[in-house]
Amino acid sequence: MDFLAKIYITLKESVLDPQGTAVTHALHTLHYRTVSDVRVGKYMEVTLSAASTEEASTLIRGMCDDLLTNPVIEKYTYELVEA
Amino acid sequence: MDFLAKIYITLKESVLDPQGTAVTHALHTLHYRTVSDVRVGKYMEVTLSAASTEEASTLIRGMCDDLLTNPVIEKYTYELVEA
Repeated sequence: MDFLAKIYITLKESVLDPQGTAVTHALHTLHYRTVSDVRVGKYMEVTLSAASTEEASTLIRGMCDDLLTNPVIEKYTYELVEA
Repeated sequence: MDFLAKIYITLKESVLDPQGTAVTHALHTLHYRTVSDVRVGKYMEVTLSAASTEEASTLIRGMCDDLLTNPVIEKYTYELVEA
């Protein structure tokens, strides 16, 4: 079966996000003054084949831990849909 | 009212994604051979205040068009929740 995994990667709450701060300042300069905070993360769509949803889920968690995220500073969530 | 907007930015389907191709190759090297495609995008969480959901939605669309996305090569979707 083919699956599409949507992976959302964000910095942990305790980690400073200078890119988000820069975007906040840029939005203020553009007169979007009601913005109080921006956090910037990554979004990935991974297409893979697996025998079952459980196997796909295990593979995605493995990929996230092995390559896609830095577990020291980032956390992730994902959704898995049959493609 | 305070709102949290979750913004998902992806490259348009027709735009090549060399970063995604590199991630696909890296996953194959790590023996995740059933991965057929990876697309890399951005994920942003914007906290803002607005008088209503409609106003917040208008502001978010404005920010995406003015600064957060490049409409030539990217598309975006967003979810708005009351914070």
